[in-house]
Amino acid sequence: MMAHALRRKLYVQLDPSRWPASGLSPLNALICTAILVATISAVAETEPLIARGREALFARLEIGFGLFFAAEYLGRLWTAAEADGARPPWRKRLRFVLSPSGLIDLLVLATTFAPFLTSNAQMLRLLRLFRIARLAKLGRMSTAMRHIADAVASRRMELALTAGFGAGLMVAGATALYWLEGAVQPDKFGSIPRALWWAVITLTTTGYGDVYPVTPAGKLVASLVAICGIAVIALPTGILAAAFSDALQRAREAKARGPEA
Amino acid sequence: MMAHALRRKLYVQLDPSRWPASGLSPLNALICTAILVATISAVAETEPLIARGREALFARLEIGFGLFFAAEYLGRLWTAAEADGARPPWRKRLRFVLSPSGLIDLLVLATTFAPFLTSNAQMLRLLRLFRIARLAKLGRMSTAMRHIADAVASRRMELALTAGFGAGLMVAGATALYWLEGAVQPDKFGSIPRALWWAVITLTTTGYGDVYPVTPAGKLVASLVAICGIAVIALPTGILAAAFSDALQRAREAKARGPEA
Amino acid sequence: MMAHALRRKLYVQLDPSRWPASGLSPLNALICTAILVATISAVAETEPLIARGREALFARLEIGFGLFFAAEYLGRLWTAAEADGARPPWRKRLRFVLSPSGLIDLLVLATTFAPFLTSNAQMLRLLRLFRIARLAKLGRMSTAMRHIADAVASRRMELALTAGFGAGLMVAGATALYWLEGAVQPDKFGSIPRALWWAVITLTTTGYGDVYPVTPAGKLVASLVAICGIAVIALPTGILAAAFSDALQRAREAKARGPEA
Amino acid sequence: MMAHALRRKLYVQLDPSRWPASGLSPLNALICTAILVATISAVAETEPLIARGREALFARLEIGFGLFFAAEYLGRLWTAAEADGARPPWRKRLRFVLSPSGLIDLLVLATTFAPFLTSNAQMLRLLRLFRIARLAKLGRMSTAMRHIADAVASRRMELALTAGFGAGLMVAGATALYWLEGAVQPDKFGSIPRALWWAVITLTTTGYGDVYPVTPAGKLVASLVAICGIAVIALPTGILAAAFSDALQRAREAKARGPEA
Repeated sequence: MMAHALRRKLYVQLDPSRWPASGLSPLNALICTAILVATISAVAETEPLIARGREALFARLEIGFGLFFAAEYLGRLWTAAEADGARPPWRKRLRFVLSPSGLIDLLVLATTFAPFLTSNAQMLRLLRLFRIARLAKLGRMSTAMRHIADAVASRRMELALTAGFGAGLMVAGATALYWLEGAVQPDKFGSIPRALWWAVITLTTTGYGDVYPVTPAGKLVASLVAICGIAVIALPTGILAAAFSDALQRAREAKARGPEA
Repeated sequence: MMAHALRRKLYVQLDPSRWPASGLSPLNALICTAILVATISAVAETEPLIARGREALFARLEIGFGLFFAAEYLGRLWTAAEADGARPPWRKRLRFVLSPSGLIDLLVLATTFAPFLTSNAQMLRLLRLFRIARLAKLGRMSTAMRHIADAVASRRMELALTAGFGAGLMVAGATALYWLEGAVQPDKFGSIPRALWWAVITLTTTGYGDVYPVTPAGKLVASLVAICGIAVIALPTGILAAAFSDALQRAREAKARGPEA
Repeated sequence: MMAHALRRKLYVQLDPSRWPASGLSPLNALICTAILVATISAVAETEPLIARGREALFARLEIGFGLFFAAEYLGRLWTAAEADGARPPWRKRLRFVLSPSGLIDLLVLATTFAPFLTSNAQMLRLLRLFRIARLAKLGRMSTAMRHIADAVASRRMELALTAGFGAGLMVAGATALYWLEGAVQPDKFGSIPRALWWAVITLTTTGYGDVYPVTPAGKLVASLVAICGIAVIALPTGILAAAFSDALQRAREAKARGPEA
Repeated sequence: MMAHALRRKLYVQLDPSRWPASGLSPLNALICTAILVATISAVAETEPLIARGREALFARLEIGFGLFFAAEYLGRLWTAAEADGARPPWRKRLRFVLSPSGLIDLLVLATTFAPFLTSNAQMLRLLRLFRIARLAKLGRMSTAMRHIADAVASRRMELALTAGFGAGLMVAGATALYWLEGAVQPDKFGSIPRALWWAVITLTTTGYGDVYPVTPAGKLVASLVAICGIAVIALPTGILAAAFSDALQRAREAKARGPEA
């Protein structure tokens, strides 16, 4: 009986949708903090200037976080039996284990406790960050998420067209510069895929400067591509601005019509 | 009789405006996919790291796609007789052959089957991408296309003015830096056309770093040009955002007034 | 009598505000074209790759354009007597000569016919471009110009604040990097004015790459400055978008209220 | 009695909220100008090309500005007794001394008169710029400030989400390039913190060019990160544009409902 009450309490703490108050439950807030600190630790660990001489500290941190997240996993496994539905507890638990989030949790735990199974632990540990998004999907944050997703979705055809226009421009620019500069700079423009690297970095207005045209004709075409880069940024920004504006307007009008509408 | 029924069926499949359901007909979906794959293959073929040792494969792919698109061309030529109008079939077919899209198709086919006629096959093969735009000009995609075109067209004077302002700024900045830096860096700022390359790359905030001022006065003017670059991006973005917003607003109001309006 | 009728006719052609039809008068259209061609010629003349061996051609072009614009100037001087008002013709003409546009015209003519008076002819010849703006200030172009100017003016305090925020960020970032990187890269960050060059190029997201921090602390601060650069672009763009949107909305509402409003 | 009248007069001049007319009081306008000139002088002083041979001039300027701001500080201290409230004058003055602005003023004065106390005088002198913001927080400027703050605040969840999305993208991109390029360019991508420098400079589309991928896989991932950089700029810009638009719309509707609303 007491175990059931404890399980219920823990379930309310662990499942964001069950927490009655707004915001995160204390336990989930602690877990989010632990994820952030563990991520910062995993990032810092790779930098020799920080990690040299502190290998033991980072190893202990990793084990500590691993134990903490393992305990959390067992807690979720145990309390999964509290989920709604008439199925027997073991089926609810299996459902949790086989859910995408359950599998990701298990995979990340493996990078700590079964390092021989995975070669790129850093990449996998980042998956923990997705958990923050999942846990924080609550209240006002969730509303904001839906606002952005709705605005993007409502204009998805226009955004897709803009992306298609950008992609076409990219391929056309890369082909033109392959043709104009390929012979002069074969290592940089000697093939269309190589020229595509230049086209992406130019159209996004990043401009590293590792690749740029040197012939007058190449510079002329590159100028046109760079100028079109303004459209590639201005069009989606304008479309998104209008979509957000429209969503706010509709919300205001719905409010003005009152609750009976 | 059977040939006529087949020709009718093929025509419905090939002409996007005849397809009764929304979206692409199965045949046109196949053609779009073939165009994308053929383009990727044409792009990859130019990269030695990919193509070396696979010349035969790429040659066979090119011939394969060529035969496929030749068959499509013949199909469109044959079914062109089904087009609306009282003219004799041969005039309808001539109309297709002499239409811009028919001529582009023929030109692209020539790069495969008459390579001795064209020197830059890669450029011409890209023209196939236009066909995707033509085939996909349908339903919701077509509505989105019209939305963007309408928004741009409704504010074309403002956008032209912004472009004029940007062009003026470009020429003024280039002339100033030609005057200030021409003697110090003659290969980079030794003429206004050379300085224009710098001005384009700066005003679009690309900033490759192959050309930049080195004198204090040059840096001061370049700073002003770079700061104006923000306006050159912010103005058209703002104008487009307002145009898209206005179009959505008008659409909503038209809907609110009801169908009789 | 005939001279008067001719003068009147020429005046209607030359003064944009007198032209009864929309658009430019044929003579002003010719003048605009001549200004554009003369500017392109003046730009091209500075490039040795274009001008070498064609010095005589460019000299003749410059003299030709000079004579054309001198004739235009004399025409405007002659027809100035047709301007509204009761003053004697010589006062109207003096008014034209001493007007900003009259003085600019005279200054530009001096670069051709009195080259010994001016040292940087290229800069001065660009002033001709202002004339295009003046001549084209007509009809729909003029409306669009007023739209942009109104939108910018209506939010000038917000835009000034954003500029102030950007300037403060620039000075703060430059001071921080002067302090953090000054000793390591004295030629690049050895003074706040030098660091300001870096700050401008970073905040505008141009990023030439001639100056960048190399110490971890410098990179951390530079990262923050670069991230704030997004706000420096997003804020004015958002403000302008809202201003344009508001202007369109007001225009639509004024129209909806009807002509009696 | 006369001292009281003078103190009252000075208080009205010094405290922006007491000045009856719009804009700055003459004394505060002088102080703002002095702050700007002192800041420019402090910036110019660090540049050897400007300061060499003028050390005495800059030292005298610094002492002069120091005396001016010391006199202002004493004036504010003296007139603080005029502040509202029933507390004794010494408590009102202590309140001024211990207020953030009073402490900053004192700190900046220390850089001039007690240089042995502070090591980085330049940084501290910049704090004077905050005073301009405080003094100018008036009338229309204050309204504009509140407009921007309100718009940002009303969409703070959406902006925070976008920042979170950008941060996640940054860490993911840095980890991917650490993994793909770490072995090839250990000094540039040899740790995630090093790769984060690349990620920030790429996502903000700055692109110095000191760090960029060289392997095909690295370039592919970097291309995706650079393309996502467009979203990282477009999303907050669109959100801010809609927020500003919504604020203007609400202001117009409130006005339309009239003063009784």
